[in-house]
Amino acid sequence: MALPENLDDLKTRASLWFSTLRDRILADFEALEDEATGPFFADNDKPGRFVREPWERTNADGTSGGGGMMSMMHGRVLEKVGVHVSTVHGEFSPEFRSQIPGASEDPRFWASGISLIAHPWNPNVPTVHMNTRMVVTTRAWFGGGADLTPVLDRRRNQTDADSINFHAAMRKACDNHAAVAPYDKYKEWCDTYFHLPHRNEPRGIGGIFYDHHWTDDFEADFTFTQDVGEAFRAIYPAIVRANVAKPWTEADVIEQEVRRGRYAEFNLLHDRGTIFGLKTGGNVKSILSSLPPRVRWP
Amino acid sequence: MALPENLDDLKTRASLWFSTLRDRILADFEALEDEATGPFFADNDKPGRFVREPWERTNADGTSGGGGMMSMMHGRVLEKVGVHVSTVHGEFSPEFRSQIPGASEDPRFWASGISLIAHPWNPNVPTVHMNTRMVVTTRAWFGGGADLTPVLDRRRNQTDADSINFHAAMRKACDNHAAVAPYDKYKEWCDTYFHLPHRNEPRGIGGIFYDHHWTDDFEADFTFTQDVGEAFRAIYPAIVRANVAKPWTEADVIEQEVRRGRYAEFNLLHDRGTIFGLKTGGNVKSILSSLPPRVRWP
Repeated sequence: MALPENLDDLKTRASLWFSTLRDRILADFEALEDEATGPFFADNDKPGRFVREPWERTNADGTSGGGGMMSMMHGRVLEKVGVHVSTVHGEFSPEFRSQIPGASEDPRFWASGISLIAHPWNPNVPTVHMNTRMVVTTRAWFGGGADLTPVLDRRRNQTDADSINFHAAMRKACDNHAAVAPYDKYKEWCDTYFHLPHRNEPRGIGGIFYDHHWTDDFEADFTFTQDVGEAFRAIYPAIVRANVAKPWTEADVIEQEVRRGRYAEFNLLHDRGTIFGLKTGGNVKSILSSLPPRVRWP
Repeated sequence: MALPENLDDLKTRASLWFSTLRDRILADFEALEDEATGPFFADNDKPGRFVREPWERTNADGTSGGGGMMSMMHGRVLEKVGVHVSTVHGEFSPEFRSQIPGASEDPRFWASGISLIAHPWNPNVPTVHMNTRMVVTTRAWFGGGADLTPVLDRRRNQTDADSINFHAAMRKACDNHAAVAPYDKYKEWCDTYFHLPHRNEPRGIGGIFYDHHWTDDFEADFTFTQDVGEAFRAIYPAIVRANVAKPWTEADVIEQEVRRGRYAEFNLLHDRGTIFGLKTGGNVKSILSSLPPRVRWP
């Protein structure tokens, strides 16, 4: 499929959107911090605020390779949350060219996106991940998705209200763009991707995952990717509000920490974004900011 | 180098040795549990005892592939320690044959070894790893080593008494077999291997690491590998005794947990044994038993 002539405009629009979405999510999450009434973990009772930290990327040849902005918050509701945007460009190293569509013809790439992982304090509140991006080589595409990981066994199932509501939100984001976004396929892709083969366990309860998404209708593709972000905004703060005042036990905290260990295993052993980022000179601090704040491997 | 005609005898001797060493180390560690006088972490004041758990390995074609014995202890001195022996045999999958000496000619392998990681409670006591093994394809070799990871920044340096004593013990194991075991090379190999490239940090203070070790003197090679185990026995319990009664602060515990995060990163992102084991149908429970019991990524 030929790239559109106005590709530079489209890249600019996508990049601006990811920053706009970041701003909205930061405001959403700070509002959660403000309005929560507890209970809170003992030494942590002030509403959290995001701290932004810019970073720059240098290509192997010393030229500028773009950069990004980390936004981290250590709050009283969200124990550790990172919302990162980046817009980078450069050349894929020979070892990666064969793995990336369109890169074997020409190794140059441009990529822009937003990536988010939230680890809440209260074990009743699920962990969440959301990421959307636009990538350009000699081809172009969108990728991303969102998935939910309830950390308590008794809540990590498909019949829990959180699971039902999260799936419904992701279905709506797809169904509103049904001509380009096949929900069943993107849901199944999520289940396949967020799976720990060495444990033969799913990471969480799923969501959607898509990659190399590019039809002949850029506006539909882009609006779909925007709506994945908006669907996340519509559902995750609601899930937090539904659970944040629920009491927990010490056993719940241990279960949370053990389940977070699985999250760390997935990110370090299997997650393509993490491994790819670490091997291609990405920003280590933002890549590893996804790791859970407290973990147990008993 | 041609394989010796009595190779089966040598394999049996090596395999028996790894079990003998395991028994000695278990006795050493249980003695540490018995004699310690505290302070102990609050809810954990009974001397720990190892629990043994056998496992079996099945080859892809359904035939027996050997197996092993996990020995785990959750003690009052050693928070989590695994001492594992295994003797396995089978065929390397096509993707691994080119990476293993002698396996491209014939994919069959036999391997026997011992592997140990100890995570002590007291942040003053360093984490330790020791592993020795014998591997046979169309070639044969020994591999292994031992390395120390003090978890407190103020102790994780080359001038600390623990570091000096640990290095001296490993040097002695090599120097006693100087005709076959080059200490400087094996020390440097350890520094190169136990390095986190994404952090540009060493994992600990080093030790020795060797692989594909095979000279024309089997007795010297085998005695050297035995002495690496005995050097470990001579030095690590002594390091535990020197530190176990030292008081710690809450800040030390947090520092310990953060440093353990680096240990988990290394094992899941870089450690060849871990990744190799998970990808070749090894025993997941024993492989991942190396992960630290409590971890922080703040």
